[in-house]
Amino acid sequence: MPSNAKLVFKGKMFEVWQWEQKMFDGSVKIFERLRRQNTALVIATVRDKILILNEQQPDTGMFASLPGGRCDWDEDPLEAAKRELLEETGYESKEWIFLKEQNPVGKMEWTIYTYVARNCVFKQPPKLDAGEKIETRLIEFEEFFMLSDNPLFYEKELVEYLLRVRLDSKKKEEFHNLLFPRK
Amino acid sequence: MPSNAKLVFKGKMFEVWQWEQKMFDGSVKIFERLRRQNTALVIATVRDKILILNEQQPDTGMFASLPGGRCDWDEDPLEAAKRELLEETGYESKEWIFLKEQNPVGKMEWTIYTYVARNCVFKQPPKLDAGEKIETRLIEFEEFFMLSDNPLFYEKELVEYLLRVRLDSKKKEEFHNLLFPRK
Repeated sequence: MPSNAKLVFKGKMFEVWQWEQKMFDGSVKIFERLRRQNTALVIATVRDKILILNEQQPDTGMFASLPGGRCDWDEDPLEAAKRELLEETGYESKEWIFLKEQNPVGKMEWTIYTYVARNCVFKQPPKLDAGEKIETRLIEFEEFFMLSDNPLFYEKELVEYLLRVRLDSKKKEEFHNLLFPRK
Repeated sequence: MPSNAKLVFKGKMFEVWQWEQKMFDGSVKIFERLRRQNTALVIATVRDKILILNEQQPDTGMFASLPGGRCDWDEDPLEAAKRELLEETGYESKEWIFLKEQNPVGKMEWTIYTYVARNCVFKQPPKLDAGEKIETRLIEFEEFFMLSDNPLFYEKELVEYLLRVRLDSKKKEEFHNLLFPRK
């Protein structure tokens, strides 16, 4: 966000910021950008499977998703990832690996941090809030990639990554080794 | 947008809407969604080439993009596509084909309509506004696909489509025939 940007509206989820921007002809216009809490996403493995969610929210039908959610303002995204994995699934891991970060939407300050959580073990029942209905499911490595063809897969920002891995057999092998390292 | 949603903020580019949403346990929470003007995008061909832009805006460096822009509220997206192509490049076409529409961002009402404009001809000099610096460039079909690997390609929402076409040689041939039909 430019240093002269001012917060003009703070909603439940989104903030709206505006600033004066000099145009190419010297005139001045009001520019606008959004801000929202960052997101932490988790690709969690349990033995030789990947853990995904079948989820429903109060204003949606069922969809497939990954564990994760909003980072509190100033919360470290890795801490948010650990917290969301435990709350939504009851699983935890001792092997966390940073996979990628991306800013998927133009005109919006919003970063998605994606982590791999290896060798997860079940610790306690999930703690769901009143806006979540979640079931966990364990799927095969190949099935995980085909989520990129599933129109009900919620993590649209991961689809591009999955397609790129599908395009490149070397990348796919590396990703397999990252998720399921040989002992 | 749910019918009980209310406009709570109208910015330069984004509107913020809120409504009361019943949760799974019967409690009620305020939900929020954004709305912005739809976008029309144009894949324009000139003879056996594809027309792209080298563009700069007052708050950015140079980037590669496609002709297109915001639809006015209630403007037909095809009309917006024709208007933007002429304003930004000076070209026009008599062969318009609807390619796809998509809603790329969660929690936001925003549709991108993508059209193919075949056999464009140059009509008049571009009419750029004070927020645009634009040069047009004609590229090969194969070069067009490799924009999906270019981090400075602005049309992020088209990247997924380009990757899918790269994954499927039959789709690629169909797309080539759509852009450059055999006489």
